[in-house]
Amino acid sequence: MKDIQSEIVMTTDGLKDMLGRVSLTPVEKARAILLDALRDSTGKTERCSLSDALDRILACDLLSPEDLPNHPRSTMDGFAVRAADTFGASSSTPCYLEIDGDVAMGQMPEGTVRQGQCFRIATGGLLPDGSDAVLMFEHTIPVDEKMIEVVKSVGVGINLINWGEDIAKGSLALAQGHLLRPQDMGLLAGLGISEVDVYVKPKVGILSTGDEIVPWTESPPPGKIRDINSITLSGLCTRLGATVTDYGIVTDSEEIFFATVERACNENDVVLFSGGSSVGMRDLGERVIEKLGSPGILVHGVALKPGKPIIIGLSNGTAIFGLPGHPVSAMVCFELFVDPALQLIAGMSPSENSLQATVHALLDRNINSAAGRLDLVRVQLQQRKNDIPLAVPVLGKSGSISTLSRAHGYFFIDEASQGINKDSQVMVHLLS
Amino acid sequence: MKDIQSEIVMTTDGLKDMLGRVSLTPVEKARAILLDALRDSTGKTERCSLSDALDRILACDLLSPEDLPNHPRSTMDGFAVRAADTFGASSSTPCYLEIDGDVAMGQMPEGTVRQGQCFRIATGGLLPDGSDAVLMFEHTIPVDEKMIEVVKSVGVGINLINWGEDIAKGSLALAQGHLLRPQDMGLLAGLGISEVDVYVKPKVGILSTGDEIVPWTESPPPGKIRDINSITLSGLCTRLGATVTDYGIVTDSEEIFFATVERACNENDVVLFSGGSSVGMRDLGERVIEKLGSPGILVHGVALKPGKPIIIGLSNGTAIFGLPGHPVSAMVCFELFVDPALQLIAGMSPSENSLQATVHALLDRNINSAAGRLDLVRVQLQQRKNDIPLAVPVLGKSGSISTLSRAHGYFFIDEASQGINKDSQVMVHLLS
Repeated sequence: MKDIQSEIVMTTDGLKDMLGRVSLTPVEKARAILLDALRDSTGKTERCSLSDALDRILACDLLSPEDLPNHPRSTMDGFAVRAADTFGASSSTPCYLEIDGDVAMGQMPEGTVRQGQCFRIATGGLLPDGSDAVLMFEHTIPVDEKMIEVVKSVGVGINLINWGEDIAKGSLALAQGHLLRPQDMGLLAGLGISEVDVYVKPKVGILSTGDEIVPWTESPPPGKIRDINSITLSGLCTRLGATVTDYGIVTDSEEIFFATVERACNENDVVLFSGGSSVGMRDLGERVIEKLGSPGILVHGVALKPGKPIIIGLSNGTAIFGLPGHPVSAMVCFELFVDPALQLIAGMSPSENSLQATVHALLDRNINSAAGRLDLVRVQLQQRKNDIPLAVPVLGKSGSISTLSRAHGYFFIDEASQGINKDSQVMVHLLS
Repeated sequence: MKDIQSEIVMTTDGLKDMLGRVSLTPVEKARAILLDALRDSTGKTERCSLSDALDRILACDLLSPEDLPNHPRSTMDGFAVRAADTFGASSSTPCYLEIDGDVAMGQMPEGTVRQGQCFRIATGGLLPDGSDAVLMFEHTIPVDEKMIEVVKSVGVGINLINWGEDIAKGSLALAQGHLLRPQDMGLLAGLGISEVDVYVKPKVGILSTGDEIVPWTESPPPGKIRDINSITLSGLCTRLGATVTDYGIVTDSEEIFFATVERACNENDVVLFSGGSSVGMRDLGERVIEKLGSPGILVHGVALKPGKPIIIGLSNGTAIFGLPGHPVSAMVCFELFVDPALQLIAGMSPSENSLQATVHALLDRNINSAAGRLDLVRVQLQQRKNDIPLAVPVLGKSGSISTLSRAHGYFFIDEASQGINKDSQVMVHLLS
């Protein structure tokens, strides 16, 4: 924690330069400060029926209580045989086996396969005693009701799934921090695990600030605009599995703003307020977070476009994000900062989320960028037959919500670059 | 429709070759037959409050009822000016403007900016009459309370967002078939659209077959195994926004099986049954789909590994999928066939789902494949510092659910290839 504390002091110390401008933290550093500060945000856990556990996050390692399968099963339609009986068989030198029984589906087979004999077996059938392989129908020719001609040999263990081959008793089925996807539900069902310990869903409180904002359900009087950020941020949080509370629109009055953020902090794991890109609101957001308690502000302003004026704080265990008022900037800050923080708070293992699927595309025009700043460029993707897609930048101001709705995704221009040329290959992150 | 019909006849005609083996349809062709047959599956629509519309699919084009914004707004903190007044200004040849007013946030500004004058304005403030640009604070030096020195010129329309610049009245806001993502919710909120027409969620009925299967909530007696597919398929459908009904486990008896599938077909848009990879069950599934009504079986068996024995049918408007019993095969068939069909039935525009994000990775071993068959290879991805990830194939039988749980994703080896070499670059689709 010592390192973080010194980082924080450094960052807050350096908040303003001599011209009163905010000094900017690089995006990667800001994210590291944030995630490091949240490292110990262990979530509460609850027990949950497997039927209700889809998309929840496992709160402990799950070991397999049994072997799966718990008896060797056939993976083909054919004959359960002693593999050695078929060795050397081919269509020119076939061998012959006597059919001595049938494996009834869903029942333990009766009897034993002895040398020179076989049992009929279907896919999923349990291997009878004595047998150690399954010969496919396709490799046999019926001689009569009681005899087959074998035209191909089969090795021990072929066409069957063995004791514990899927998963062995006592081995790790799923690790703590794992998101339960449909296939994981199947694994747990197969093991008979009917209840799981999962993390309680993180709670997020959302409020908008600004005297010019009215609820989107109202018709704005002249000079006012509808609240766009609350419903967008709420949707983003909901998709991440969080429980969202909307605290409505708060005026720019410091007293009311502080009281609402304080209440939201007491009731949630994460608080998002948006609006206040103006210098006055920025200062207000800053003062309120510092007043709320230790450690206070972690990051104030990042070297990012759009999204520069974000404030990130932590007070008494609640992460607080002051997001820019422009809808595009707010959503970009959500993707880069709130999303990873929320997943950490939700209990998700960091390794779960480190793989980023992207679409490789060719940029269709030159884009300039300022060095020392991470630029996020929204693009539409145009599919082309037998060629990689074209990435067409969606130009528009960060106040323009329609540009986000039109964009398929975005790519980054890193801090070291001053732009990127037409026909360069870019890795586009899809906005799902 | 004529082409499809002849395709269907061809496919069903060709169901078995002289050895009684099923002839296999290539995956792309099978998918085209399926999606073509579902072309006219227009969903029912319902009206829905915007608050409840996240992840629903728009049933009609939405035109913007107004200009957004409906008045020019500042995107910076600074001064509303007449741009012409600043032309030629620089730090060596500054010009001077008189501060004649303030724009109060959330109110229509009073007064007019006249030549040689300016109004203080914050981000989001409405531009007063007479002004046509916003000069950033950073490009001014205060002289006194009533005067600023301008050290940089500003062009007309700079640092503001104009009438309808985000979206113009009457233009297309969102198209029919669009999935409502958080950013789309924001756009509609900004336009004051509080209710939307969306498609009714598709209904999916799921049943498992096989005398060896018991519900996963039960302890299986010797010879039986727990149902893995129902909960996995249910989770996959739920994630796609479908309403799922579980019809439980049905025995291999044709009478009971037919009655249950018939009931499920009457009550759902899509019916999935799984199990029955054995020849007997395959034949049963085939007979049942044909008995249910026209057009009956569309595809029976595809050139795919795993997933070969899938049966796809359509009866009286309900899509029916007979999925293989092996959990891995069932999930692969879901990804390749049920997923796109369900999205089409849900009303999603085909263009919405055509972009596939992938992770480029390097294959860490040689993989063989049979020509004429699409192979889907499950892989774990290993991140490497400053290098593309390594794709490590997860080997294991298609009956092994744990291999799906361990895999991060999969890549394809196409029909023309007989394998793929170590160190080849592969495009891995992530299993989310």
